[in-house]
Amino acid sequence: MSKYTLGLDFGTLDGRAVLVDVETGEELTTTVYTYPDGVIDEVLPDGKTELGLDWALQNPADYITALEHTVPEVLKKSKIAPADIIGIGIDFTSCTILPIDEEGIPLCMKEEWKSNPHAWVKLWKHHAAEPYANRLREIALKREEKFIYRYGGKISSEWVFPKIWQVLEEAPEVYEAADHFIEAGDWLVLQLTGQERRSSCNAGYKAIWDKKEGYPSPDFFAALHPKLKDVVKEKLSTDIYPIGSKAGELTYKMARLTGLKEGIPVAVGIIDAHSAVPATTVTQPGKMVLIMGTSTCHMLLSKEQKLIPGIPGVVEDGILPGYFGYEAGQAAVGDIFDWFVSNCVPASYEKEAQKLGINIYRFLEEKASKLKPGESGLIALDWWNGNRSILNNADLSGMILGCTLNTKTEEIYRALVEATAFGARMIIEAFVNNGLPIDELYTCGGMPHKDKMLIQIYADVTGREIKVASSRQASALGAAMFGAIAAGSEAGGYDSIEDAVTHMASLEKKTYLPIPENVEVYNQLFTEYRKLHDYFGRGSNQVMERLKRR
Amino acid sequence: MSKYTLGLDFGTLDGRAVLVDVETGEELTTTVYTYPDGVIDEVLPDGKTELGLDWALQNPADYITALEHTVPEVLKKSKIAPADIIGIGIDFTSCTILPIDEEGIPLCMKEEWKSNPHAWVKLWKHHAAEPYANRLREIALKREEKFIYRYGGKISSEWVFPKIWQVLEEAPEVYEAADHFIEAGDWLVLQLTGQERRSSCNAGYKAIWDKKEGYPSPDFFAALHPKLKDVVKEKLSTDIYPIGSKAGELTYKMARLTGLKEGIPVAVGIIDAHSAVPATTVTQPGKMVLIMGTSTCHMLLSKEQKLIPGIPGVVEDGILPGYFGYEAGQAAVGDIFDWFVSNCVPASYEKEAQKLGINIYRFLEEKASKLKPGESGLIALDWWNGNRSILNNADLSGMILGCTLNTKTEEIYRALVEATAFGARMIIEAFVNNGLPIDELYTCGGMPHKDKMLIQIYADVTGREIKVASSRQASALGAAMFGAIAAGSEAGGYDSIEDAVTHMASLEKKTYLPIPENVEVYNQLFTEYRKLHDYFGRGSNQVMERLKRR
Repeated sequence: MSKYTLGLDFGTLDGRAVLVDVETGEELTTTVYTYPDGVIDEVLPDGKTELGLDWALQNPADYITALEHTVPEVLKKSKIAPADIIGIGIDFTSCTILPIDEEGIPLCMKEEWKSNPHAWVKLWKHHAAEPYANRLREIALKREEKFIYRYGGKISSEWVFPKIWQVLEEAPEVYEAADHFIEAGDWLVLQLTGQERRSSCNAGYKAIWDKKEGYPSPDFFAALHPKLKDVVKEKLSTDIYPIGSKAGELTYKMARLTGLKEGIPVAVGIIDAHSAVPATTVTQPGKMVLIMGTSTCHMLLSKEQKLIPGIPGVVEDGILPGYFGYEAGQAAVGDIFDWFVSNCVPASYEKEAQKLGINIYRFLEEKASKLKPGESGLIALDWWNGNRSILNNADLSGMILGCTLNTKTEEIYRALVEATAFGARMIIEAFVNNGLPIDELYTCGGMPHKDKMLIQIYADVTGREIKVASSRQASALGAAMFGAIAAGSEAGGYDSIEDAVTHMASLEKKTYLPIPENVEVYNQLFTEYRKLHDYFGRGSNQVMERLKRR
Repeated sequence: MSKYTLGLDFGTLDGRAVLVDVETGEELTTTVYTYPDGVIDEVLPDGKTELGLDWALQNPADYITALEHTVPEVLKKSKIAPADIIGIGIDFTSCTILPIDEEGIPLCMKEEWKSNPHAWVKLWKHHAAEPYANRLREIALKREEKFIYRYGGKISSEWVFPKIWQVLEEAPEVYEAADHFIEAGDWLVLQLTGQERRSSCNAGYKAIWDKKEGYPSPDFFAALHPKLKDVVKEKLSTDIYPIGSKAGELTYKMARLTGLKEGIPVAVGIIDAHSAVPATTVTQPGKMVLIMGTSTCHMLLSKEQKLIPGIPGVVEDGILPGYFGYEAGQAAVGDIFDWFVSNCVPASYEKEAQKLGINIYRFLEEKASKLKPGESGLIALDWWNGNRSILNNADLSGMILGCTLNTKTEEIYRALVEATAFGARMIIEAFVNNGLPIDELYTCGGMPHKDKMLIQIYADVTGREIKVASSRQASALGAAMFGAIAAGSEAGGYDSIEDAVTHMASLEKKTYLPIPENVEVYNQLFTEYRKLHDYFGRGSNQVMERLKRR
């Protein structure tokens, strides 16, 4: 008799439930629910309260409604008996936080707070806390706080403390009224189980928490603002649970809402990108996972903790239990290609693609894949959305060089693809040069299944074999795998992530081997890339910053 | 009773005859004839003899046929009596040279030579003599030849001696058989008048000739190749005539061919861009003329001869008699915008332009003109076709910097326009910093009448008022003006170029004044441009050259 787990994947625009066969990893049924309020970035759902620039909120009711819609539908479509579903795992965007009262009710759901923007969920891409992030960084550097070096010297405005500090400064009444602030993923676990079981992944990557060091000191927080002194004790929690552990069991109320069986185990939540790592079969050091979509996350496991300049996060138990998990990122990858297609592809190409009955991306790929490396004479810097790793500078911008009157559209497209591959290689070399070897690359996400040229270019640029996850929804599959571990072998699940990987995760047969003559050309081009990267990115000519700040 | 002159304008693709009223400058009638053989760059008209890379030839018979077609048609359409046409002026592309026999017959017109590519006209854009140009430069620098500094340190492969040297090396039999080599413009004057009256404009800008210094020494030519020692004496002429003088009178044969009156004065030929200067009303120092089309030529008059680093030509009597004429150039301007429209403008823009019933250039201009200077955060280097002045390096290439996910197509377009304006300012500053003040800019050519935004940006970037010639075919009008001077006042023409300008040339009423707040922003952006210009153009990072030579 087969057993199943449920992977609940909460993205930026929708929630997804995937039912997975624990024995084979087969993804039986998937249902997706688009949040009615989506990303709230102009006006609150009251239709009146306008938001400032760079704000991005969500409505927590959407998460519950997503559960209510997707899970029963999965059950219905799959015809699997609830009794055969033995565990639930959850992955969520992060840092996505909200203020709640002592009963776990989001403040924004309460009449008295619903028109205060600070009472709502601050989505990961809420960037209005930038001034607080900058001040936090300055103060940390001045005080020579050790933690700042764990994050490559910078705390992002997307993370917990800049966001909380913004609430305190701009809406002290919300700060006072909040019993706690909590990551939306942890809040959902709380809703499902009645237990607050904050995840080491969220806390480590987004809340400056470390398994050994804990949070920054009250002294440090007091230096930000006197009222923040005890922010951890008063508004967060020091009770942090490692990835791979069980958070609790499904409550009666939630069983009624979803149609699942009361009491089935629910795993501690994990960030969406991190969840994809085991779904890509990786459970060991030396194998970097690239989760490639609109942006790329680069994940690496190690038994050692190293401080790597420009790599923003290393968290013990942050990806898998027993390992330090490293996360790096490229702020735009697929987004650059989308930008190019929307803004720079001529009508004649659109027409030709239409005539061939293929979409414009495949048409460009087809034309670009006929070019030899270096043939176009173009080189680009892939900073259309700034540089997350290893320069950590949102004010950098994209550049393309080598244009002539003969430059073709597909040559620019290929140069952009190559630029993102060079960006990935900069990250890989930062790890390797700091003592964390990387032998192979693994990839999953929106693009690897669609664009063969892209993956081959990454193999050629990095000089490494690339393997591609079979699953097209690796984050959700990973969540389901954590659900199987939360269930444990007695219930038909697994006792270790390695066992779960053996059964539930798999790779595409086709792997991408570097082609030696391409590797040679790209080594030369990468030397050029690095020179431009350092010239524009390390202070020789801060023209990009100056142009952006005009 | 009105008198008229004829301006004969020989471009790259066609010949044009314009009949101009000497008293008013009114352009009565224009006819254009497209050369049947056009630019010969793949195979000779015999259909068999294939050409190498970078070759560009023409058929001199096309020039005569153009005369035969355009002049009678002008007469017919205008209904002007031939007796009222008092003079002819000619402007021609340059350096466009051909080998002729002792009777002035082009070798390629003779049966025994017609299948030898070297017997044909080498058009200005024939670039296959590049190796000879490079060797010539090396030898000149080694010998510390003074002349090389008159040309900004470099002799272009487009010019006379690299082209003749190529003939000697690759087809010595053609070199031997040639009685002379001659510029096509001078050859046409010879055809019309029976007189060889080589132009100071051609000789000075393209044949390393100087009114005081003459040509390089036989010693220098011998250092190139022993057989070149007496190339000037044997294959060219030291008999050079200043611009503004009369070359001779129309022969009976040519009067028959064209329908004009025998014996009317024909002016010494001039290069097309140079001919535009008086047609733009400029006859004095301090006023730079920009002839803007696919590329831009920058012309300046001065009583002084200065050696300006990076400015390739200063010629006494080269533009107007009594002045040193300076010429600088931007190798691509309109060509860059054409490239952009062909390769980078999305279908959605084309559709919207169509809906509005305007062409895509006007549509882009309309959108781009709504942007404020510096608003886009973009900056570009305008080297899509290398840099002619002041870096004189064909291996440089275009660059664009500052791209983000929000960058719009029209923002890139505007950045490209701005980049060409910054390129023009670099040239202006080279003059000004070397003691040749420039107070005003004058412009003519294909673009100034079409694109108001472009001219306003040039005014704002250069901080100078810009005036636009009324004529849309300034080169041909200039030729007609020189025809009026060749005729002289007794015949109803003029005795000086100043008099001709007073009557025949005029400006548009609308002039473009720099807008102070834009000037300020562009001063800051120009600082960025110059820094990038010097970094990529002056040896700090020769990535463009390396990428091109891969």
